Amino acid sequence: MVILGNKEYYKGIGKIEFEGKDSDNPLAFKFYNPEQIVAGKTMQEHFKFSIAYWHTFCGQGSDPFGPGTQKFIWDQSSNPLQAAKDKADAAFEFISKMGFNYFCFHDYDLIQEGATFAESEKRLALITDYIKQKKTDSGIKLLWGTANCFSNPRYMNGAATNPEFNVLARAGGQVKLALDATIALNGENYVFWGGREGYMSLLNTDMGRELDHMGQFLIKARDYARSQGFKGNFFIEPKPMEPMKHQYDFDSATAIGFLRHYGLENDFKINIEVNHATLAQHTFQHEIEVAAKAGMLGSLDANRGDYQNGWDTDQFPNNIQEVTEAMLVFLKAGGLQGGGVNFDAKIRRNSTDMEDVFLAHIGGADTFARALLTADKIITSSPYEKLRMDRYSSFDSGKGKEFADGKLGLQDLYNIAHENGELPLKSGKQELFENIINQHI
Amino acid sequence: MVILGNKEYYKGIGKIEFEGKDSDNPLAFKFYNPEQIVAGKTMQEHFKFSIAYWHTFCGQGSDPFGPGTQKFIWDQSSNPLQAAKDKADAAFEFISKMGFNYFCFHDYDLIQEGATFAESEKRLALITDYIKQKKTDSGIKLLWGTANCFSNPRYMNGAATNPEFNVLARAGGQVKLALDATIALNGENYVFWGGREGYMSLLNTDMGRELDHMGQFLIKARDYARSQGFKGNFFIEPKPMEPMKHQYDFDSATAIGFLRHYGLENDFKINIEVNHATLAQHTFQHEIEVAAKAGMLGSLDANRGDYQNGWDTDQFPNNIQEVTEAMLVFLKAGGLQGGGVNFDAKIRRNSTDMEDVFLAHIGGADTFARALLTADKIITSSPYEKLRMDRYSSFDSGKGKEFADGKLGLQDLYNIAHENGELPLKSGKQELFENIINQHI
Amino acid sequence: MVILGNKEYYKGIGKIEFEGKDSDNPLAFKFYNPEQIVAGKTMQEHFKFSIAYWHTFCGQGSDPFGPGTQKFIWDQSSNPLQAAKDKADAAFEFISKMGFNYFCFHDYDLIQEGATFAESEKRLALITDYIKQKKTDSGIKLLWGTANCFSNPRYMNGAATNPEFNVLARAGGQVKLALDATIALNGENYVFWGGREGYMSLLNTDMGRELDHMGQFLIKARDYARSQGFKGNFFIEPKPMEPMKHQYDFDSATAIGFLRHYGLENDFKINIEVNHATLAQHTFQHEIEVAAKAGMLGSLDANRGDYQNGWDTDQFPNNIQEVTEAMLVFLKAGGLQGGGVNFDAKIRRNSTDMEDVFLAHIGGADTFARALLTADKIITSSPYEKLRMDRYSSFDSGKGKEFADGKLGLQDLYNIAHENGELPLKSGKQELFENIINQHI
Amino acid sequence: MVILGNKEYYKGIGKIEFEGKDSDNPLAFKFYNPEQIVAGKTMQEHFKFSIAYWHTFCGQGSDPFGPGTQKFIWDQSSNPLQAAKDKADAAFEFISKMGFNYFCFHDYDLIQEGATFAESEKRLALITDYIKQKKTDSGIKLLWGTANCFSNPRYMNGAATNPEFNVLARAGGQVKLALDATIALNGENYVFWGGREGYMSLLNTDMGRELDHMGQFLIKARDYARSQGFKGNFFIEPKPMEPMKHQYDFDSATAIGFLRHYGLENDFKINIEVNHATLAQHTFQHEIEVAAKAGMLGSLDANRGDYQNGWDTDQFPNNIQEVTEAMLVFLKAGGLQGGGVNFDAKIRRNSTDMEDVFLAHIGGADTFARALLTADKIITSSPYEKLRMDRYSSFDSGKGKEFADGKLGLQDLYNIAHENGELPLKSGKQELFENIINQHI
Repeated sequence: MVILGNKEYYKGIGKIEFEGKDSDNPLAFKFYNPEQIVAGKTMQEHFKFSIAYWHTFCGQGSDPFGPGTQKFIWDQSSNPLQAAKDKADAAFEFISKMGFNYFCFHDYDLIQEGATFAESEKRLALITDYIKQKKTDSGIKLLWGTANCFSNPRYMNGAATNPEFNVLARAGGQVKLALDATIALNGENYVFWGGREGYMSLLNTDMGRELDHMGQFLIKARDYARSQGFKGNFFIEPKPMEPMKHQYDFDSATAIGFLRHYGLENDFKINIEVNHATLAQHTFQHEIEVAAKAGMLGSLDANRGDYQNGWDTDQFPNNIQEVTEAMLVFLKAGGLQGGGVNFDAKIRRNSTDMEDVFLAHIGGADTFARALLTADKIITSSPYEKLRMDRYSSFDSGKGKEFADGKLGLQDLYNIAHENGELPLKSGKQELFENIINQHI
Repeated sequence: MVILGNKEYYKGIGKIEFEGKDSDNPLAFKFYNPEQIVAGKTMQEHFKFSIAYWHTFCGQGSDPFGPGTQKFIWDQSSNPLQAAKDKADAAFEFISKMGFNYFCFHDYDLIQEGATFAESEKRLALITDYIKQKKTDSGIKLLWGTANCFSNPRYMNGAATNPEFNVLARAGGQVKLALDATIALNGENYVFWGGREGYMSLLNTDMGRELDHMGQFLIKARDYARSQGFKGNFFIEPKPMEPMKHQYDFDSATAIGFLRHYGLENDFKINIEVNHATLAQHTFQHEIEVAAKAGMLGSLDANRGDYQNGWDTDQFPNNIQEVTEAMLVFLKAGGLQGGGVNFDAKIRRNSTDMEDVFLAHIGGADTFARALLTADKIITSSPYEKLRMDRYSSFDSGKGKEFADGKLGLQDLYNIAHENGELPLKSGKQELFENIINQHI
Repeated sequence: MVILGNKEYYKGIGKIEFEGKDSDNPLAFKFYNPEQIVAGKTMQEHFKFSIAYWHTFCGQGSDPFGPGTQKFIWDQSSNPLQAAKDKADAAFEFISKMGFNYFCFHDYDLIQEGATFAESEKRLALITDYIKQKKTDSGIKLLWGTANCFSNPRYMNGAATNPEFNVLARAGGQVKLALDATIALNGENYVFWGGREGYMSLLNTDMGRELDHMGQFLIKARDYARSQGFKGNFFIEPKPMEPMKHQYDFDSATAIGFLRHYGLENDFKINIEVNHATLAQHTFQHEIEVAAKAGMLGSLDANRGDYQNGWDTDQFPNNIQEVTEAMLVFLKAGGLQGGGVNFDAKIRRNSTDMEDVFLAHIGGADTFARALLTADKIITSSPYEKLRMDRYSSFDSGKGKEFADGKLGLQDLYNIAHENGELPLKSGKQELFENIINQHI
Repeated sequence: MVILGNKEYYKGIGKIEFEGKDSDNPLAFKFYNPEQIVAGKTMQEHFKFSIAYWHTFCGQGSDPFGPGTQKFIWDQSSNPLQAAKDKADAAFEFISKMGFNYFCFHDYDLIQEGATFAESEKRLALITDYIKQKKTDSGIKLLWGTANCFSNPRYMNGAATNPEFNVLARAGGQVKLALDATIALNGENYVFWGGREGYMSLLNTDMGRELDHMGQFLIKARDYARSQGFKGNFFIEPKPMEPMKHQYDFDSATAIGFLRHYGLENDFKINIEVNHATLAQHTFQHEIEVAAKAGMLGSLDANRGDYQNGWDTDQFPNNIQEVTEAMLVFLKAGGLQGGGVNFDAKIRRNSTDMEDVFLAHIGGADTFARALLTADKIITSSPYEKLRMDRYSSFDSGKGKEFADGKLGLQDLYNIAHENGELPLKSGKQELFENIINQHI
């Protein structure tokens, strides 16, 4: 069941199994039961849980105040290709042990960027081949790929929005390779996160030009991928700031407006990250609802922030109420369009035991599973959904429906207002709704 | 020069004059010189400074922790029409003494709402006639009108987004009357601020239906106004939250996306309020730039927030650097499309001297005037604008221009990347830009 | 069981009973079972749930954007004393129906302030007598009293910190009366919340003088109350801001430092409000821990804020994880010193059904009860507490204990460092701790 | 004048001179004129501007999303001591060229930490000797030293507050060496910044024990330094969070309370950093006022944050109004006690020209100089200070003074309140104060 490479990296930890909520085993799922059917689909189908290559196999726990604390055994080879293969072995071992079916990557998560573009291209091709084989052996799939166009100093002023064309061109070349790798690995989707697409200072920036360049860039990337036979979705992952003072894909509403303006709305959807949502002063569930309303609920990056700190903490999801409310919207929207639930989360810098990363993913998966079960119960067995829909029933027929259908003008509304006289207040019943949610948790 | 009614309300204070920056007179402009020409227009033409009827003549200084501290002499009559006329007299006296040319209002700023819709309609008609005469006598104009569809308890669940059709209809009737009054007073623009258009809790909300209703509502309002001969602009005034947990017109980008989605982009523009911008985690200048890029920079609500408190403090503008940076964008955008600079600001609750509201407006006008002068000097006499544009010069010709014109595909970019090899880093020179700004303040 | 006055105000709603977590009755407790023993005390003893007179019987749902939406039947009499008696009748009916044993008040919650100080004094005396009788009849007790020295315009520049001595003196007179009323009603504690004790602008403020005046004021208030036989606790209720830009009792740490500096630490403790904690960028549990560490964990104001809005929303507690973590600290600290759990919370402005305020209090009480049960289970039946304490075991004996006892100097530490060589990393196990909490919810 | 080592690092840039505000030379001071006397002292004496070794000579511009962009020439030697000497040469060249007199360091800024404690000790001794000579040659002085007890992974769970005694002991050893180096270099002060002294999660933390350990640690560090003849001040540098979720030295009020509680108030003062102040929801000027009121205004770390991002951006000071208001408090407090103005600021990651770091320091120094001049003018030539003091004049004599002197009890205040009757409102004149400030900028 568990795919190992030449060497076992996570020694002493076997496959994580579902043991139910009364289990005392910290290394077992309490709620996530992959084959359990909820609302017509297995949990596995609902979520398509995915491991983030960058956090789990590359992120060593550094922060702005200190270097990494993790010492990855697979990082020891001085040969970049060997190190990359070792990392892939560790990755497929870990994903298999977690019992998940997907992973996500940035190009240079897979293998260290080379000194030249040509060298990078070569390295990517080699590691792509290696991982292709791992995928075949394990049945693990690629949820999405992406290009890291934000870490290298060359992108310090932007990638697609760099004021210097040659840097933009380099980003274009890099995205081509990342698309090629994604296609080669049967990636189901492709993501754009614009970590440097925005500004540090508006003073030295021409926002209009930069946005137009970003629009062009995405159009050309889409056209190229389609020409290569890519059938999957493109996702924009909004984030309001950090590292930049302002990032153009601020939130879902902004990204949706942008995509529509540049004619990209049929190919692109939104990849919502919890902590990015909250940095934009939105709830996770809000962002899901906005994307769903636009028909663009593509994928989720599961994590959580600290509502009281102002940076992306990328903690593992554990907020039961937040995720339950999100799952209510998720179920009502009919789930995701092509994407899955990717754990874009990292263990704390001081979580240095090998088991910690398992515990973290278990906690995250259980939080989602429990939230899904609760949300399903609320929808199917409580008065919640009826109470909510009844609030809008005046638009289901009569004058209300006529208005909604565009058949009443302002003069009609004025006439109705005159006829009606003063209206009784109708309670919004917020506390009742909240109590219902809590009772089902 | 100064228009008085039957009675002088602001006794002992005459017309505020420009005396220059060395004047010690607190009741004189130090920078705002209405007739002074800057960048081809008088300051007066640039700004069209406007008084907000609600704050200056209605707002008594209450806050959630205590009632008002202002005792307005014009509020003494128990006859609503007389009180409204007295207030109008005070208003026109104040505006005249400030030397401004514009005011803005909500319907029930002008006169207290009646017990019935019919009574309100009658009252509005009477006060509109009265103010029409005051306008003629004084030459003061109406920058924009709006309907207060947020204070009355009937709108507690929304106006255009109320789940109950009859409340929506009542809002429609009210907007009709406010449009009628605006048209009767030759209002140059009409504003929508959706103070209750959003949600207190997503749990009891159907966001999709509410947004569609809001779209319909605005379409019908526009159609009605156009049918009545209104040629002015409609403005959306974004605000992210407060009073609601979330308001649909979160920021400029969101509002622009909404307007385009519902086909309203040719009639509507954006009215940007400083404190609303900052509540949405944007700078004032950012919001101006976003609206300008979309061709929708309509009008400004001048005030300032406290970056460290989380509610709309509506303080008078006094942040020299913030407004200077805003004026840079303002000048580069060619100014406002139809709107002006409305002081949507209130004196502090503990500012209870009659002169305080004069001092506050003087400080605000001087801040804008000084910022305009500084920004003009930066643009015309410093290397600022050249430095900024040079950053993008690689897109002015050659391959960069071809890309911007849509003529290069991803494969082309890839080829260029290969040819270029690694690129030198180009400093963004942020500190230099900042020093240039500061040197000119 | 239920105490009624001459008239039943909350018709159709009887006493709220505990029915257990499977009950479908929205008007029943699911977790709060007053007589159930947890960790050696009944829930009732742990919590001493209290109703906030101001929100539940006075607050009509106004916000800065509109007037109240609640129409209280007990507010109809134009005779202030009669209206106050009617309100008291409603209050005792409500508290009885909720099955709670306590209430809290500000002086002018009980009865409207008079036109003069003498008139206010007389009114307070009359309503105090009336309530005394209601208390006797019902067995309901006074958790704490306080004086509202923030609403009246006279306090717009502060009460004890007003730059004008006569205003400070007036506040002193008012506090005397509030203390008298609290003592007359056998109040168990007395609270100071400094809503206007701080500054709107530092520019016009002499912080040093104001703090010294505040210190003096509290000393004299304590001395007076003790001279009148008051044996209860005094509480400071910290809040960082709102209405002021800055309030001097910013958070628990600041208030504790202040109390110690002015020699008040033996008479005063801290009253922690959830939403005040979060406005100060602290968690509720953090503030409890800080107060407990100082031996000053006095009382709790139960509510919750919105982590994404920047003002005091005073929503009813419903955050299960937040309150569970708080109850962990609460139980470890041995509970409260003299105080109780006061619902300083208000229903939403659009919650206008009579039952809504019951639903809200039920949800709040259940959240605390459930959290207490969960926290107790975590402490008694999980590895949580041992895991936590083991982290510090190196200080239980040997050199670690010597250090903690002050017996090792820096030179000793240096010597130990030399001997030790490099140290292994010990995981903080944060994800494990978090999983344990969630598993028990 | 300019001290060079064996090699000039900042080629083409000479000594930065004062040229006055009309100079077009970006590499000249416009306001900072070291010898100019303001309020009785030269600017140089007021500020004692200091360079932060870590940012300017060590910080390469990395952020959580990418590695550094600066390539320091002095980092090329693979011999740690040679690299450290080269860095020192560059540092003294830079400081000399800036015309400043001070620097500040963390131990391992000076030289890379060794593989063992003994090796680190040896390295520190060697570089200390080298720098001693540079100091003598250049006349540049050490404002303060400190130990970096936060970067090394060993401190991931805290240094003085680590749950593991041996880590605390190691921190103790390290602080001893840093104190030794500071003393050897005639450091005028010594700083503690507790970057890891706090918690990532309260769940696994015993706050009480950790605070007691921190108290002991500081006591022992003080005792050791005094025993070695150190006469300077110790400073605590508050910061509310980042990297930890919560840091114990949250803000000035918290740190002052802590210092007094552990009996450290006579040896320790506060080092206030602008961006740390704003992360704690305080203004810079607020923190200065709090420290000054306690007699603990020790030193300043000059920089600025972004009020709209939630992390420490450490940008160079350029906020004219913020610094002007700070200088008002600074002058009223009589300046700093022992410390100076250290530029704890870094150029932006995309500022990669060699001149950028000069431009940044020039902008920062000019902002402080201009603010000092403005504040002095406001105090000496405007009605500002009199207006402010007059507000408190009722406490200068009569009953007000008696109260302030502790001679009036609550009963006295009550009597005065009765006699006074209702009081007139006195405007706080905030807008007037603000206009005065702006007029002088």
